[in-house]
Amino acid sequence: MKFKMMYSFLNTDLQLIEKELEAAIEADSTVLREASLHLLQSGGKRIRPVFVLLGAKFGDYDIHVVKHVAATLELIHTASLVHDDVVDDADLRRGSATIKSKWDNRVAMYTGDFIFARALEMMAVIESPLAHQILADTMVELCLGEIEQIKDKYNFNQNWRIYFRRIKRKTALLIASSCQLGAISAGVDEKIHQKLFKFGYYVGMSYQITDDILDFTASEEELGKPAGSDLIQGNITLPVLIAMEDPKLKRLIETVREDTSKDEMTHIINAIKSSGAIEQAARISDMYLEKAFSELKGLPAIKARKTLSDIAKNIGKRKF
Amino acid sequence: MKFKMMYSFLNTDLQLIEKELEAAIEADSTVLREASLHLLQSGGKRIRPVFVLLGAKFGDYDIHVVKHVAATLELIHTASLVHDDVVDDADLRRGSATIKSKWDNRVAMYTGDFIFARALEMMAVIESPLAHQILADTMVELCLGEIEQIKDKYNFNQNWRIYFRRIKRKTALLIASSCQLGAISAGVDEKIHQKLFKFGYYVGMSYQITDDILDFTASEEELGKPAGSDLIQGNITLPVLIAMEDPKLKRLIETVREDTSKDEMTHIINAIKSSGAIEQAARISDMYLEKAFSELKGLPAIKARKTLSDIAKNIGKRKF
Repeated sequence: MKFKMMYSFLNTDLQLIEKELEAAIEADSTVLREASLHLLQSGGKRIRPVFVLLGAKFGDYDIHVVKHVAATLELIHTASLVHDDVVDDADLRRGSATIKSKWDNRVAMYTGDFIFARALEMMAVIESPLAHQILADTMVELCLGEIEQIKDKYNFNQNWRIYFRRIKRKTALLIASSCQLGAISAGVDEKIHQKLFKFGYYVGMSYQITDDILDFTASEEELGKPAGSDLIQGNITLPVLIAMEDPKLKRLIETVREDTSKDEMTHIINAIKSSGAIEQAARISDMYLEKAFSELKGLPAIKARKTLSDIAKNIGKRKF
Repeated sequence: MKFKMMYSFLNTDLQLIEKELEAAIEADSTVLREASLHLLQSGGKRIRPVFVLLGAKFGDYDIHVVKHVAATLELIHTASLVHDDVVDDADLRRGSATIKSKWDNRVAMYTGDFIFARALEMMAVIESPLAHQILADTMVELCLGEIEQIKDKYNFNQNWRIYFRRIKRKTALLIASSCQLGAISAGVDEKIHQKLFKFGYYVGMSYQITDDILDFTASEEELGKPAGSDLIQGNITLPVLIAMEDPKLKRLIETVREDTSKDEMTHIINAIKSSGAIEQAARISDMYLEKAFSELKGLPAIKARKTLSDIAKNIGKRKF
């Protein structure tokens, strides 16, 4: 089943959210309007709004309330993408088309700030202090994840715990909060919204591990960037950590710098792929998915539960 | 009267806020801890928390509630300073000691984001949706002000309206919101907290105009940077706009670029100073102060009102 088919019953509501997003980034500034093109282009699946809406289905679903939460989560995700672009040195150094000049970088930073602030405006209509607390905590963790990612670049001696904490902060918590905040805004009981949080957390962990695997196994065409991009940029992901358990492979991988030649990178990527590391990482991803499914079992058997399950399955088998 | 003497009766409460600020920026990351040194150093007068506390004095003052609002406002101000540092190219180009390397810039960006997020955590305990709305709106305006400032650099044809809107967004609204949010968190009536907002707005406008004047009139020692720094960085402020009313002076000022020589800058600064532009800018600043005082007249005659008045007077006559 195609991804978007799984939640086609949400289409009308998702279109409403799309309108909220467009309205939120509107500003009478050419610079901002241009920068926000990035927003619309990087849009894609709107998976966070989908999780928000599905979370709300477990309570008193009112699209005119929950749409604000959905748009907030998507805006925060988008703002963090905009700031990622500022940080993304690698593209700059390799002279790709996505280069941001110094001036653009400054604008990108403030555009990110602007979108963050718009997200908060959107969220201000929600009265639950708990919801505000969860959102703010998630944003703190997101920033810590970003800072850690910079700090741990090319650190080939980081342990697995560091990796798992980083992807939790960078990816999983935002998906977890999406599920939970949708539920809270619909007045769902604590027991249920905490299960939804856990479901989102496990799905998010699996999603990021799969992403990190695809960086090695998908084609350049599918990825829109060369395979092994994470590694050459110094982002040490699970397949790499697993491969480095072999001391010989570790010595090879540790030679990677941003100026490592393409031939050498191909050699290293092939060494990682034939080490069994990819398969082991995939098993860990599946383990997280299993945990996600078992959280679902404790939830009321409504249609949204089936949809969450379908989405989780799709995340487990996606190829790019 | 010394600035801090005016509100010495708030000292115990301000110390409590200082503790909140320290706790807020704590993180088990060396990078963050180092970056947050900037926070403590740039601390100074904590004028925003003072305005928050004084605003709250018009209602049911509870330091254990209002301290969160006060710390939030100071954290948002600090985060925006951190992001200003990322943007501040001029220092980079002139090779001053405050240079941030590329790596530092990225960390500074995320440190700013982190402090923003901590501010929101702090604010989450406040239940008033109105308070969240005002804070979010203020942050949106702050970002728009920053983006406009970049966009309008070296634009010698901007009109006064653009300047006033920019300083409103960059400075005045945050001070206005400080006064108002303190009041709202203490359950103050709308009529009163709107007057406090207006008071803060007028004081903020006067404060920024005075700042822009001091950039010409204060010594390098007092400023911690050469006189005319704003102009050489392309920030067109009120004294410059007034001076440019004279076509001959406009032609001279329009030659300013970031590589304009020190001698040439001295010549231009002296031309601005002897044009009467400084005095006229000061009169406009005073006009805003008068408006601030007249807002105070409509407020209950409590001690806090006298303190707000003293602070406003001090802002009007400060020399650096």
